Amino acid sequence: MTAPATSAARLVQLLGRRESGVPAYRWLADGLRRVIADGRVPAGHALPSERRLSEALDASRTTVTRAYALLVETGFLVARHGSGHVVTLPLGRERLGVGGALLPGTGDAEDVLDLTCAAGRAPAGTAEAYAAALDALPSYLAGTGYATAGLPELRELIAARYAERGLPTAPDQVMIVGGGLAGVGLAVRALSRPGDRVLVESPSYPNSIDATRRSGARLVPLPVDPTGWDLDLAAATIAAATPVVAQFILDFHNPTGALMPDADRERLAAALRRAGTVAVVDETMLEVRLDEGPVPLPFAAHLSRCVLVGSASKSHWGGLRIGWLRVPRPLLPQLAQARIADDLGAPVLEQLALVQLLRRGHGLHPERRDELRAARATMVAALRDALPGARWVTPAGGLFLWVELPEPRANQLAAAARNEDLLVSPGPQFAVSHGLQRYVRLPYKDPPEVVAEAMRRLGRAWRAQASLPSGPVASRPRPVVA
Amino acid sequence: MTAPATSAARLVQLLGRRESGVPAYRWLADGLRRVIADGRVPAGHALPSERRLSEALDASRTTVTRAYALLVETGFLVARHGSGHVVTLPLGRERLGVGGALLPGTGDAEDVLDLTCAAGRAPAGTAEAYAAALDALPSYLAGTGYATAGLPELRELIAARYAERGLPTAPDQVMIVGGGLAGVGLAVRALSRPGDRVLVESPSYPNSIDATRRSGARLVPLPVDPTGWDLDLAAATIAAATPVVAQFILDFHNPTGALMPDADRERLAAALRRAGTVAVVDETMLEVRLDEGPVPLPFAAHLSRCVLVGSASKSHWGGLRIGWLRVPRPLLPQLAQARIADDLGAPVLEQLALVQLLRRGHGLHPERRDELRAARATMVAALRDALPGARWVTPAGGLFLWVELPEPRANQLAAAARNEDLLVSPGPQFAVSHGLQRYVRLPYKDPPEVVAEAMRRLGRAWRAQASLPSGPVASRPRPVVA
Repeated sequence: MTAPATSAARLVQLLGRRESGVPAYRWLADGLRRVIADGRVPAGHALPSERRLSEALDASRTTVTRAYALLVETGFLVARHGSGHVVTLPLGRERLGVGGALLPGTGDAEDVLDLTCAAGRAPAGTAEAYAAALDALPSYLAGTGYATAGLPELRELIAARYAERGLPTAPDQVMIVGGGLAGVGLAVRALSRPGDRVLVESPSYPNSIDATRRSGARLVPLPVDPTGWDLDLAAATIAAATPVVAQFILDFHNPTGALMPDADRERLAAALRRAGTVAVVDETMLEVRLDEGPVPLPFAAHLSRCVLVGSASKSHWGGLRIGWLRVPRPLLPQLAQARIADDLGAPVLEQLALVQLLRRGHGLHPERRDELRAARATMVAALRDALPGARWVTPAGGLFLWVELPEPRANQLAAAARNEDLLVSPGPQFAVSHGLQRYVRLPYKDPPEVVAEAMRRLGRAWRAQASLPSGPVASRPRPVVA
Repeated sequence: MTAPATSAARLVQLLGRRESGVPAYRWLADGLRRVIADGRVPAGHALPSERRLSEALDASRTTVTRAYALLVETGFLVARHGSGHVVTLPLGRERLGVGGALLPGTGDAEDVLDLTCAAGRAPAGTAEAYAAALDALPSYLAGTGYATAGLPELRELIAARYAERGLPTAPDQVMIVGGGLAGVGLAVRALSRPGDRVLVESPSYPNSIDATRRSGARLVPLPVDPTGWDLDLAAATIAAATPVVAQFILDFHNPTGALMPDADRERLAAALRRAGTVAVVDETMLEVRLDEGPVPLPFAAHLSRCVLVGSASKSHWGGLRIGWLRVPRPLLPQLAQARIADDLGAPVLEQLALVQLLRRGHGLHPERRDELRAARATMVAALRDALPGARWVTPAGGLFLWVELPEPRANQLAAAARNEDLLVSPGPQFAVSHGLQRYVRLPYKDPPEVVAEAMRRLGRAWRAQASLPSGPVASRPRPVVA
């Protein structure tokens, strides 16, 4: 098969102005590496021939030859018969072997498509943000580097974003932590003791549920439907259990994608206020807004005893491990004490890089948003064929569809998908205790062509699962990462 | 007072080869910034005059003038009457306002000396390691960035170091986490449940004790003397309490500085083995070895059910927030499951920077070791005057002296020190429950001249505390950071 090609003219445009002061081949190699890493030249695409590119760039043939050789050496290109030089970053797959490296027995073959991690590659500009952060680093090297609450400039940027969203916030109410999951765990541990009742949504993000369970809390599950929350049920559950803490994901809920409207937030806040419950609200998906529509107020604008948890992993990049808490003043001492038992602060350079990224914008990169919309459309279109009779509510944001299968066979589907080199997360993984066998979470975080291939494999798996027996399946699904 | 001066010849040597392709003033400014941040030109020192430096560099006067102006602008230099340009990075003080930013009411004036954080500035070469890491970053940007177990090359380097120390280790037994404290917390939470008995040394590092207490464990304290461990007492305590987990700092204990010899490790391991206890051993201070002497085997070579916790914060820099666990194979699944409830992995760039640093060496930077030795000697010499009648055992490694006062007045001393613009950590902060009023921990992590000034303030504080009443003091000491 001939690889799709990127034209020389397009490359010249992507590479931008020729930099002076560095050798031409070095400039070209660095630029190519950047646009490949960005995904602007996708893996599997062929680069123009050396002759074509040297003409288009008005550079010597040797320059292009040396640059291509450097990229072959560093693993960004392979020379392929009939296609010239082809970009080799693996499509839709980690370079880090995430789950595979962590848990034995789940290592991937090269061509496995992994839908257990709802996160994508870094958007354009990420490498530049790190480079700018590096420029700012020297003045911090003279200190111990322990920034237990976070860098002041980062806390200011984050506080300003809350104010913009209608929630006045002072920088000292913002605490920088090592990602959204770490933030939820910290807040729950700081605000509850082992044995306390903590309300958790079901389904919800499994690692958050697990963190809360490990804190020794007694979990009180609150069912969440694909269409959203049942406010009467929520109010009744909260009144009956009077939990110390309640965890929510209100802005593009994980995994249902539901967005709680302001009127419901008001009712939920009233129920929590009556019960004396502190809310811990995970806003990790907040900035992954794909469609126009109403933008509800942050939950802390409805309920003062509310800790908001933010993260840059979904809006920017998962490799940047920074999250933050927005804490109401009366709870600050409690959170600060717990913070220092967790770790001694987030890395300085990561924080400086996030300062750079947030200065350019808190929201999703427009290119990334367009790609996610396209991928979502591809998935929706393909699902009708792949899973006949399945139902879902297409969410206005977030990274996945929560799909209701025609039969409660999610574990069987996941087991059959593995045979098709496709990893998916069945519903029971998102349940607080059991059930949800009728659901599967399908992230559309990959480029549309990868999503299309994943849906073809899913279709084959669905047909194959019919022959598997009901009840527990032999192979345990891979843990959900994000 | 005239500032001490750095000669033009020394600067020329530090700056190294002139880089081509960047303007000369820019190269000079970057180089100066680097050697200032490194501490190779310390704060308070004057730079040579513009004329002298331009001659020594064989550069134009304008070049030097522009470079100096740039450094004044960015806060690295001040023009001081009679001394020319003086380096202004604050001596012995954070740029990050660590505790001050985290906990209200502990903000620092400019000239406060902070001995509550036993950590120093970054050694020479740190900025370069980050720069090299940045070069390696692009190939990771195409992935999600979640490296839950850690980058393979980093885990290999760390595994090789254990092998070098006499403990064969495979890379998959190494788990990368966000620093030593995070590692201890993770291990204790993974290996115990709320209500379980966990043995902790007393005194010990307060944030570790706090993390364990917050996990819901019942703490079993094991007294540690300034001279080390009482092995009979340890064996009896372990046999009586049969704790599920036991936490130790055996290599330059925090705060006593004691180093447990191999024979004692063997006895301790036997006692733990009989009780079925898993050891969690914090080796954060391991590489801060200042004197020659016996190098005991890692505790996991004596006891197989032992998790070792390592960190780069003390050997390299605290702003690099990377630690790791070395886990025996049978405990790996348990630790991996707990890991993913904590956070989704350490930041990619930090890991790449540590790869660079470890390739150059796992141990303390030789310049840093020399400085710590000098600072320790200064402290030991000054302490006789500052605290007449005080006693201590000078440790062969680590970052502090654990000083026994002639009277149990540590809290009073800390309160009086605050009036002298000196922050110190009194003994009771390191106790599991109470006591240790006779001790104070004094880090020698600052340059000798700063240590000397701190000891003068401590002497004044000791004389002043005599007039304070016994019993609880009004002002709570600042929390210990590291």
